Amino acid sequence: MSLHGDSVLAVGTVAFDTIRTPFGARERVVGGAGTYVGWAATRIVDSVGLVSVIGDDFPASELDEMQCAGMNLDGVELRKGEKSFFWSGAYHMDMNTRDTLATELNVLADFVPSVPKALRFAKWVMLGNIDPKLQLSVLDQMEERPKLIVLDTMNYWMDSALDDLLAVIARVDVVTINDEEARQLSGQHSLVRAARHILDLGPKYLVIKKGEHGALLFQKDEAGALEFFYAPALLLEEVVDPTGAGDSFAGGFLGHIARSNATDFDTLKQAVVVGSALASFTCEAFGTERIRTVSEREITDRIEAFRRLVDFAPIAVPAI
Amino acid sequence: MSLHGDSVLAVGTVAFDTIRTPFGARERVVGGAGTYVGWAATRIVDSVGLVSVIGDDFPASELDEMQCAGMNLDGVELRKGEKSFFWSGAYHMDMNTRDTLATELNVLADFVPSVPKALRFAKWVMLGNIDPKLQLSVLDQMEERPKLIVLDTMNYWMDSALDDLLAVIARVDVVTINDEEARQLSGQHSLVRAARHILDLGPKYLVIKKGEHGALLFQKDEAGALEFFYAPALLLEEVVDPTGAGDSFAGGFLGHIARSNATDFDTLKQAVVVGSALASFTCEAFGTERIRTVSEREITDRIEAFRRLVDFAPIAVPAI
Repeated sequence: MSLHGDSVLAVGTVAFDTIRTPFGARERVVGGAGTYVGWAATRIVDSVGLVSVIGDDFPASELDEMQCAGMNLDGVELRKGEKSFFWSGAYHMDMNTRDTLATELNVLADFVPSVPKALRFAKWVMLGNIDPKLQLSVLDQMEERPKLIVLDTMNYWMDSALDDLLAVIARVDVVTINDEEARQLSGQHSLVRAARHILDLGPKYLVIKKGEHGALLFQKDEAGALEFFYAPALLLEEVVDPTGAGDSFAGGFLGHIARSNATDFDTLKQAVVVGSALASFTCEAFGTERIRTVSEREITDRIEAFRRLVDFAPIAVPAI
Repeated sequence: MSLHGDSVLAVGTVAFDTIRTPFGARERVVGGAGTYVGWAATRIVDSVGLVSVIGDDFPASELDEMQCAGMNLDGVELRKGEKSFFWSGAYHMDMNTRDTLATELNVLADFVPSVPKALRFAKWVMLGNIDPKLQLSVLDQMEERPKLIVLDTMNYWMDSALDDLLAVIARVDVVTINDEEARQLSGQHSLVRAARHILDLGPKYLVIKKGEHGALLFQKDEAGALEFFYAPALLLEEVVDPTGAGDSFAGGFLGHIARSNATDFDTLKQAVVVGSALASFTCEAFGTERIRTVSEREITDRIEAFRRLVDFAPIAVPAI
């Protein structure tokens, strides 16, 4: 399978998750950052190349479905006799915070991503949340500088591998992290100051994900002033399982940029809305159950719901 | 002083606050829900009638300034030899949560609000956060049913006076509470379900205030379907003191409705934006320092900043 011009390359885990919420539970459903990025992005672009590693416990039928949906799995290493990465977590009552109950690295323990030749010219790259050393190695394998590189990471790497993390942050275009991580990385409580600090580390754009409170996009304009955009999260009647929402956001976000073949601030604002829409679908069911069936029409309707959510009529100048 | 057609009547405390934040502190600054509602509303309408009670420790110069700004204080009872209500609180690092350090009821202990005759025809009424029995007594004193009644309350009254609270909720048009209080009052974690539950108690509209995460407006349409609007909070470089932000929101919110002389959903959406703008000013300094100097032009600029914050270009249908 070859890559189209709008194709996305994503590195990230393909794994099993056991998920408990206050309202339900699922054992060993298919999950992982790469999986969610892939499902979300294939809702928008034709082809998404995945770079990952799995054990031979991963179901072949699942791999078939991913390929049928447009995922190029040439970069997914299959290790015979080994087990896939496994994560288990339990959500708190607020469905916005969780405890990790178990992490079994398995095949991930000594994973070294290898980007297949055909994928080394990808123009749109998503570096999912893995060891920043591995994220760097993916960038080193690219034949050409991609048009846009998005990096996801987490507090664990800030604590354990800050130098490597800063090295990869300096080489990407967009950093996506949550609000607590933005505060930790910058040492600033104010998100405005945190954003300014993180943009000084190199990236052109910063996305701060606030879960049920939406997502913020920041850039510095040519004069150095901070510009921002706020996409609130859609209100869902019921959040069934937020696992993978951030990765679905990333897949929708980068998918929209790839489809638009543009990296200006206006396109990135739209991308935040598309990403938020795809994240909201993922929350509606356990695992990838919902995101894998999302249609073009459903995405369009949800984007329209976002616009209505924040739309208000012009307000006349107060006459004091 | 008589009331104009667009005048607002507000019942709420006029008091002293001692405020500590991780970044600063102030001793005995002028505060209280009624004070903040009054300052915010007078930024937008000509006259705001206050119903409250103070001791003779309250500075006469402050009363003069409030009157000059357009507040009618005929309904503010002055008790000789007694002390004004006093509250002291300390904000946590997140500036979104706080601990109460002291509450001295003083004159508030046996306060019975008395609405002066000239104010009993007010069309726009704000029932600030006090004992629901007192809120009911204010409504009973009105000569005509106001065009719109807004109620603020807090978890304390849900715990200690739920029956009275439900009685007053059934008689108002808008309830404004924060997200945790909405969850407590409804017994529902999902804000969508909480909103449906609270609207079933009687009010036409519900505003859920989420502090730094903005505010939500809900109504049921004619078919019973829930409609909502989300005004994100403006991002401030620095939140100096959030005390009174919710009351400033209420003052701006009801002020806009009064000025517009309309109570439809589109007007209430605008009112949420105006309220959010005024709340953001209050957060920029301790006490009423900032809100009392806000100009017409500054409000207009901030409303424009709200529009820019959420504005994105139309997104073409995905071409899968």
